[in-house]
Amino acid sequence: MLSATDIRAAHDRIRPFIHRTPVLTSATISRMAEAEVFMKAECFQKVGAFKARGALNAVLSLPAADREKGIVAHSSGNHAQGIAYACRTVGIPAYIVMPENSPRVKVEAVRGYGAEITFCVNTPEERQRNADLIVKETGAVFVHPYNDFTVIAGQATVAKELIEDVPGRLDFVLCPVGGGGLLSGTALSAHYFSEGTSVIAGEPEGAADAILSFQLGKITKAPYVSTIADGLLTTLGDKTFAIIQEHVTDIVTVPDEDILSTMKLVWERMKIVVEPSGVVAMAALLKYAGIFAGKRVGIILTGGNVDLEKLPF
Amino acid sequence: MLSATDIRAAHDRIRPFIHRTPVLTSATISRMAEAEVFMKAECFQKVGAFKARGALNAVLSLPAADREKGIVAHSSGNHAQGIAYACRTVGIPAYIVMPENSPRVKVEAVRGYGAEITFCVNTPEERQRNADLIVKETGAVFVHPYNDFTVIAGQATVAKELIEDVPGRLDFVLCPVGGGGLLSGTALSAHYFSEGTSVIAGEPEGAADAILSFQLGKITKAPYVSTIADGLLTTLGDKTFAIIQEHVTDIVTVPDEDILSTMKLVWERMKIVVEPSGVVAMAALLKYAGIFAGKRVGIILTGGNVDLEKLPF
Repeated sequence: MLSATDIRAAHDRIRPFIHRTPVLTSATISRMAEAEVFMKAECFQKVGAFKARGALNAVLSLPAADREKGIVAHSSGNHAQGIAYACRTVGIPAYIVMPENSPRVKVEAVRGYGAEITFCVNTPEERQRNADLIVKETGAVFVHPYNDFTVIAGQATVAKELIEDVPGRLDFVLCPVGGGGLLSGTALSAHYFSEGTSVIAGEPEGAADAILSFQLGKITKAPYVSTIADGLLTTLGDKTFAIIQEHVTDIVTVPDEDILSTMKLVWERMKIVVEPSGVVAMAALLKYAGIFAGKRVGIILTGGNVDLEKLPF
Repeated sequence: MLSATDIRAAHDRIRPFIHRTPVLTSATISRMAEAEVFMKAECFQKVGAFKARGALNAVLSLPAADREKGIVAHSSGNHAQGIAYACRTVGIPAYIVMPENSPRVKVEAVRGYGAEITFCVNTPEERQRNADLIVKETGAVFVHPYNDFTVIAGQATVAKELIEDVPGRLDFVLCPVGGGGLLSGTALSAHYFSEGTSVIAGEPEGAADAILSFQLGKITKAPYVSTIADGLLTTLGDKTFAIIQEHVTDIVTVPDEDILSTMKLVWERMKIVVEPSGVVAMAALLKYAGIFAGKRVGIILTGGNVDLEKLPF
């Protein structure tokens, strides 16, 4: 299990290579939520999303001798960019397996960081098979997008900074949940660094595996998968699930229409480009306003990588 | 003519009601421009654009007895929101004349600040005639969007903050030009507060009145008007033109395709929602890279009010 010391060490390790992203407030959004809202804008992070943190901590935690042959990852999204950026930072090869239908903008970004891309059919099995093949051929190390303690410790630094930068105690921290890397890290940081702060996750109705797993007490698949929040399609892993079971207060779901309207609200009022997955926590705040009324609420806006040619509005 | 003291006084006057917007840097954009680029993000300003500054200074500069009957303005854009915000701030009525085809999002924003809106046919004559009528009926004071020394002094605070917040001297400050309120203010701030800094304006090719006026030495209309940068359609006034003639180094033009690609660049790489008019200075930087190579360049990103339902990409 990860300790407070592990998270502090992760933060020290990655600090030179990440932005300390701002914590923003908006009179409009606090008024709408009837709460005091503090938004941690990870859209402004390196690679445009918090995933840079976990990827960097995973790569930097490996002894130099173990990582010199490079890193392998599979991802259609922000983890791919995070690993590519981390590998360029330490000067080792990055091998990224991406689904052949990945958004152009994400493929270009990964390529821009100098990674070698292998395209494959978009099934979990094919992604893993291709990644395993590359590990075998190159001797590079596979880094899982979330079910990995070094990745979780890296993601935990988001909430750690949020807690440090908000004056006074937060009643709640809200973040989205996909595979659970950010959520488990957030829950650990609240547990270690902010006594009395509850962590609640927002999940798309159309990818509701985490809420089911949480309620049933075992990792469970979503009954159906259909959501605009394409970064949250993955299922919890055993490591993330164990932490979530112990330290998360609740998981709530939001429909795509709320995700979309919240995304527009953030673009229009805050002038921040945030992706659908990135506003799920804020959509949850607005939907379940009763829970949060009068409270001090920290929200993680997780990323801003959207294809401007294919906007949902 | 405006003095350094006037600009300092304007800044003190409006400071409690504006954001000191951040000065941002981007490794990608500095690399593309082959220059050291500092971006003043006025998209994060109150009402989403620098216009809040000039409007506030105009309203706050009026003696309380003179402004108690309210302010009249005509604008389809950010000046309307600026005046509405300024009037709400001091608790007086705002009467805004807007063209009947104004973007929904801007009408809603103006109404959201509690202003009374009068719609009219979209010609300069009709706008002014309606504004004059309201002045006569209500006794409210008309505030011009740019040809007004209090407005110019307010807009000058953008460059003043930029100069104060960038460590070391800037070689250039670039801003867009429409009616010239921001440009003349920027030129005055560079003149008074940053010796040796040249001010260059970017103007859309499809609204090229300022470059012609500047070159011919008299206020001249654009040969044709057709540009995506809808905030820059206006013609210089006598007050702004006189300052520009004396203190601006040069004006350059950029085509709409450059404005559009620069807008996408800022959204994609910096995750900032900026409107077409807001990136004209940066488009000029990228187009005329030869002039700016190796230099320290300040850029004003002027605003972020776009209708997400009608994006140009």
